[in-house]
Amino acid sequence: MKKGKQLYEGKAKRIFATDQEDVVWIEYKNSATAFNGEKKAEIDGKGRLNNLITGLLFQKLAEKGIESHFVEQISENEQLVKHVKIIPLEVVVRNIAAGSIAKRLGFEEGTAFKEPIVEFYYKNDELGDPLLTEDHVKILDIATPEELQLLKKEALRINDVLVPLFGDMDIELIDFKIELGKDKNGHILLADEISPDTCRLWEKGTNRKLDKDLFRRDLGGLTEAYTEIYNRLGGTI
Amino acid sequence: MKKGKQLYEGKAKRIFATDQEDVVWIEYKNSATAFNGEKKAEIDGKGRLNNLITGLLFQKLAEKGIESHFVEQISENEQLVKHVKIIPLEVVVRNIAAGSIAKRLGFEEGTAFKEPIVEFYYKNDELGDPLLTEDHVKILDIATPEELQLLKKEALRINDVLVPLFGDMDIELIDFKIELGKDKNGHILLADEISPDTCRLWEKGTNRKLDKDLFRRDLGGLTEAYTEIYNRLGGTI
Ligand SMILES: Nc1ncnc2c1ncn2[C@@H]1O[C@H](COP(=O)(O)OP(=O)(O)O)[C@@H](O)[C@H]1O
Ligand SMILES: Nc1ncnc2c1ncn2[C@@H]1O[C@H](COP(=O)(O)OP(=O)(O)O)[C@@H](O)[C@H]1O
Ligand SMILES: [Mg+2]
Ligand SMILES: [Mg+2]
Repeated sequence: MKKGKQLYEGKAKRIFATDQEDVVWIEYKNSATAFNGEKKAEIDGKGRLNNLITGLLFQKLAEKGIESHFVEQISENEQLVKHVKIIPLEVVVRNIAAGSIAKRLGFEEGTAFKEPIVEFYYKNDELGDPLLTEDHVKILDIATPEELQLLKKEALRINDVLVPLFGDMDIELIDFKIELGKDKNGHILLADEISPDTCRLWEKGTNRKLDKDLFRRDLGGLTEAYTEIYNRLGGTI
Repeated sequence: MKKGKQLYEGKAKRIFATDQEDVVWIEYKNSATAFNGEKKAEIDGKGRLNNLITGLLFQKLAEKGIESHFVEQISENEQLVKHVKIIPLEVVVRNIAAGSIAKRLGFEEGTAFKEPIVEFYYKNDELGDPLLTEDHVKILDIATPEELQLLKKEALRINDVLVPLFGDMDIELIDFKIELGKDKNGHILLADEISPDTCRLWEKGTNRKLDKDLFRRDLGGLTEAYTEIYNRLGGTI
């Protein structure tokens, strides 16, 4: 596989074309950003860890019947994935109140919801990724109501795999964000990344945070925490 | 009917008990507030106009089979209504983009939606009335999914009456907010008010604003505009 021209540079990754039309090359960067890009830093090792963790998680999800864009790991900070057209929604699943939902709706951080919930945010940096209702998704012509139900179902299926997977590592999956896209046949696939940058992960018992909140809240120890996640997932390189 | 003790003083109205347990006495105030109470003023005649307009609208809705809490007008700024337990949701129907939805989602003001949409906001001044998804309503235990569907259907039914009603007066109903409550039998009723304080009303052709945006945006002429609405509705006192 040959690395072609850069198609996109985002906040955390660069996307390159390859000599195969339906495959793109993702390079994970060490950049950390939060609060819609207002807070920024470079953190050694972050790109490598997110790349490796995402690869492991997508493989474990595949074993449970959840298809993703993941094709193969090509280096410590690069992977090949199927090229999809990203649906501009950040699909968030929440098991336990933390972050924006705690603040906006008055839940105490750590409160378990009686059932997991799914939220949709408009992936639009200019507008600051606003929360959307299902009616908003319709009037913005982002997805049909049927597609939205499918995204919701898929997000909950992924949660059903990830909660016990992290649970077995003594880690509580508080919430996570996914992105999905359509391949050239219009088939919807899990895409982008699933990593401590896009999940809230709390160590059971201690409630020690092992995710990007370490950066958001200036708690330090991010590389160590992400390494901990990688190791508990069985990562070896 | 005898006016009893004050039960509640809100931003725009005072609620009093009466000698009949299931009836309360609403007094409309001249206070204008916006931006969650940050902006305030007293505007002569506003209480009277909102009281009279709400009464007329609730009567016209009743003629079309839409039940509300309205019992009777008792003075120019007072009305009797059935006592309900308010469901803490502000139910918003939007036909055309204006205000927060234009800003949040990037719609140009005045863009017609392909179909009316319904939004739910948590009626909670402390939290600043945040937008809710249906999942949020569930985890906050505000309403069951079935009740929420009923609220949505009722809001759209009310829109279906109000759009032509205002349309016949050469006024475009851009959006409006309602509150609903449960009577002692658990029956859900339209409550609170429907007035230029809770609707966006634009004169057809000129797009002249005839609603609370005159206050929010310091455009002046509020009493004249509300009087215009009252007169076009056939108000005579
Ligand atoms: N399989 C894929 N095909 C095409 N684009 C993808 C794929 N997976 C992820 N992307 C997109 O590539 C970009 C990844 O880079 P990232 O740094 O996360 O960007 P952003 O700052 O926009 O979130 C995102 O816009 C993401 O939606
Ligand atoms: N029929 C009713 N029974 C009981 N409470 C009502 C009824 N109709 C409206 N209310 C409530 O009375 C208050 C009306 O006063 P308002 O000044 O609008 O208050 P707020 O500032 O809380 O919006 C609101 O809290 C409203 O929900
Ligand atoms: Mg991203
Ligand atoms: Mg009110």
